[in-house]
Amino acid sequence: MATTFNSVDPSTGEIGPAYEEATLDDVQAAVAAAAETHRSGALADPAKRAALLRGAAARLRAAGDEIVTTAMAETGLPEARLRGELERTAGQLEAFAAVVDAGDYVEAIIDTPDPEAKPIPRPDVRRMLVPIGPVAVFGASNFPLAFSTAGGDTASALAAGAPVIVKGHPSHPGTSELVARELSAATADAGLPEGTFAHLPAASLEVAQALVDAPAVKAVGFTGSYAGGRSIADRAAARPEPIPVYAEMGSVNPIVVTEGALDARAEAIADGLTASVANFGGQLCTKPGVVLIPSGEAGDTFASEVAARLAATEPTVLLNERLRDALRESVAQLPAERLGGAGDADGPGFRHQPTAYRADASALAANPELLDEHFGPVVLFLTYRSREELLAALDRFEGQLTGTLHAQDGEDVAAVVETLRERVGRVIFDGFPTGVAVTYGMHHGGPFPSTSASAHTSVGMTAITRWLRPVAYQNAPEALLPAELKADNPLGIWRRVDGELTRDPLPG
Amino acid sequence: MATTFNSVDPSTGEIGPAYEEATLDDVQAAVAAAAETHRSGALADPAKRAALLRGAAARLRAAGDEIVTTAMAETGLPEARLRGELERTAGQLEAFAAVVDAGDYVEAIIDTPDPEAKPIPRPDVRRMLVPIGPVAVFGASNFPLAFSTAGGDTASALAAGAPVIVKGHPSHPGTSELVARELSAATADAGLPEGTFAHLPAASLEVAQALVDAPAVKAVGFTGSYAGGRSIADRAAARPEPIPVYAEMGSVNPIVVTEGALDARAEAIADGLTASVANFGGQLCTKPGVVLIPSGEAGDTFASEVAARLAATEPTVLLNERLRDALRESVAQLPAERLGGAGDADGPGFRHQPTAYRADASALAANPELLDEHFGPVVLFLTYRSREELLAALDRFEGQLTGTLHAQDGEDVAAVVETLRERVGRVIFDGFPTGVAVTYGMHHGGPFPSTSASAHTSVGMTAITRWLRPVAYQNAPEALLPAELKADNPLGIWRRVDGELTRDPLPG
Repeated sequence: MATTFNSVDPSTGEIGPAYEEATLDDVQAAVAAAAETHRSGALADPAKRAALLRGAAARLRAAGDEIVTTAMAETGLPEARLRGELERTAGQLEAFAAVVDAGDYVEAIIDTPDPEAKPIPRPDVRRMLVPIGPVAVFGASNFPLAFSTAGGDTASALAAGAPVIVKGHPSHPGTSELVARELSAATADAGLPEGTFAHLPAASLEVAQALVDAPAVKAVGFTGSYAGGRSIADRAAARPEPIPVYAEMGSVNPIVVTEGALDARAEAIADGLTASVANFGGQLCTKPGVVLIPSGEAGDTFASEVAARLAATEPTVLLNERLRDALRESVAQLPAERLGGAGDADGPGFRHQPTAYRADASALAANPELLDEHFGPVVLFLTYRSREELLAALDRFEGQLTGTLHAQDGEDVAAVVETLRERVGRVIFDGFPTGVAVTYGMHHGGPFPSTSASAHTSVGMTAITRWLRPVAYQNAPEALLPAELKADNPLGIWRRVDGELTRDPLPG
Repeated sequence: MATTFNSVDPSTGEIGPAYEEATLDDVQAAVAAAAETHRSGALADPAKRAALLRGAAARLRAAGDEIVTTAMAETGLPEARLRGELERTAGQLEAFAAVVDAGDYVEAIIDTPDPEAKPIPRPDVRRMLVPIGPVAVFGASNFPLAFSTAGGDTASALAAGAPVIVKGHPSHPGTSELVARELSAATADAGLPEGTFAHLPAASLEVAQALVDAPAVKAVGFTGSYAGGRSIADRAAARPEPIPVYAEMGSVNPIVVTEGALDARAEAIADGLTASVANFGGQLCTKPGVVLIPSGEAGDTFASEVAARLAATEPTVLLNERLRDALRESVAQLPAERLGGAGDADGPGFRHQPTAYRADASALAANPELLDEHFGPVVLFLTYRSREELLAALDRFEGQLTGTLHAQDGEDVAAVVETLRERVGRVIFDGFPTGVAVTYGMHHGGPFPSTSASAHTSVGMTAITRWLRPVAYQNAPEALLPAELKADNPLGIWRRVDGELTRDPLPG
């Protein structure tokens, strides 16, 4: 008899439809189909991959109403956010299709031969990136579309030519099933084999573990908690054949506000910060969890202002009961002063009142847990008495996805920027870390523990490199070279020839 | 009292000078100095890094006689080889200096802002690669210069701006000390702090483990055995903060010879193969360990020919006693027919007779250990009776650094090439895998277990990416941007601006 699990509407706590849990046989079948698809070379044709990505985008948009309605009932996220996220998801798929079209993501390098080279003649060497093999993707609970079944990991892996097996997140099984349906249909539309994409709905750990253990799986993409990411990374590292795990595990995303910035625009910063902390229940990897402000009256007023705005915000629905309980428990232990009076949120379902806390930055030495992440609409103000205290506090932060500075022209902030840069993936000026723009060069990553692989990103076009490895051809006959490396450059891509970037055919 | 260990001349077995083993305090001091150098930003100036690399190359050449003489006595490698390797080492350092000069290894990407973007305005995003932090390098025994103290890992890490701590290989301590002396002098010449480079001579495991465990070490480069590489990778993965390990662990580098190639040029292939197997004691990561040949008379004759040439070769001196003993033991257990009669090599020191073995390719199913690496002048012929048997045999190979095909025009080899490509880092046509050319695009890497990180190389200019991570700047004031990302492109480097490669300043 099949095991099932149910969706839950977090805004009411009501049990929704039942979904059939994938079995270990399903895992093996999905992995075998992905391996066969990889081996067959079916994904080698860039035109088909681009068609798949564009087809998936079109199908997701066409099924948008059904997907958004289902996602609302499973996540408690508002319609506008989910419609925006659906469009972002479609946009990501299309952006990767454009990367496939442009073709230079393969980083082609050609070194022409030198028969006179010493001590031995130099051969003709041509290198490009090729797909690594089947990829397992673990979707995130907090982005049921953009970081889930057809999200950035899946889009970038398919663009790279790697078959994808998604472990559907149990917090939005209906959404995941709908998206998988559209992606599978787009695969068929593009004339690609079924093994190109598989979806395994699962609430249990066994399916996840079997997927990470499967010998044919060659890399893992993950977005979620530190505990989840680390356990997958550890498991993958302990395989007979270790494989890379690209886990984005969140962080507290410090914001530094200088005295000058507070003097000049406290109101605007308070508005932006309140939204960045409270929107969507603060359930974003880039939510600012810690804000460093000057001690004294201006800082205190600012913190009280933000606390009042948060207290005036409707209690927000969290994604599921587990996250709500974990948040309650973790803030209850926070060694900091709670600003504003509101207690636990009332109302049905799984809610939490947006809340601010305060402590002295100097308390970090004795209470390093002040820098723990609280996933939800919660922010901690740390007050600093001097630039030295600020820099010393920043020095205590582990790796972060982002670090933000609000400062004014003329303030000496070089050391602050340098200290942030050393421990974050993205430095933001006079803005807020949430709302990660999908641009070519966006970096959504950072030193450990914000990710398991600081050299990589899960947003932006360079995310494709996670699913690729180089191959060099030495003295290959022209007929056996892939198009990307042929002398006449039939694809017209940028290549590095004898050290110089060019789109020209090889000379001679 | 300090612990010491001695060098040994492997051509005689005689004990050489004593070297002082680094202590755990030395490890901590070296790591602390490297961390301080990294934090100080002293390595941020590309001109100084290029000067260091060029200065080191010049100094190594100037000290060439002393270095080569010492290396000969410690490794048993011939003078011509070591002179070539010294020049190669100097050339690598200079090639990375040129990469630093060119500057585009930082992969700068600039996305200009779009205030009209939906659902939220798109910010100004500028991304580049920055150094990851202090790097530990474990040199190889078999390349006392090019893959050791000032070898490719060290050169690429210094080029990236990462301080380097080398664990000197105990098989050539005097060589390592001399090279370290020159590199440290070049560091001072370039006006860089002492913490830029450290050398820790050690024969014990404790020093290696302490280096891998040191929290300030952010990545490891390693060249050596599977056992060594895997144990370092496992240890690094189990740290509180896991770090990447780029371990090149060798392979058997299959060569496929077709009937056509054998008909056309058996003699030339036999010559090349004999040299590739026997030169330098066959102690190369890219030594061809397994050669697949057609069964029948032509194949048998070819194998006997190679075996006879190997038997006629002088017994070669191996690098040390441990390697010689391990080789003796492993070939004794090889379930294959020994071709030619010579027994164990006579003579002083640690020698082994170059030898060929033969088995049926069909025996692989029952004897997978036929594909184990034997580090030394040993080759195994596997005879295949059909294309199907050849492809099935190739399918049994794990990840390899290289795969080679000797074929003639008109033979249908597409499936062989594809099968090789799927499991190797470099596909070689009508040549031999040893003698890795240092070119921009050379790929010296491959799927596990040939390396621990198939996306990376330890030879060629892209080796620099191992020591870098991306950082994005969002809406940064021009004054706070690094030169690589400033609007007017003062360094004149290639950058990707709004998706297109250009060296132009930003428009507007």
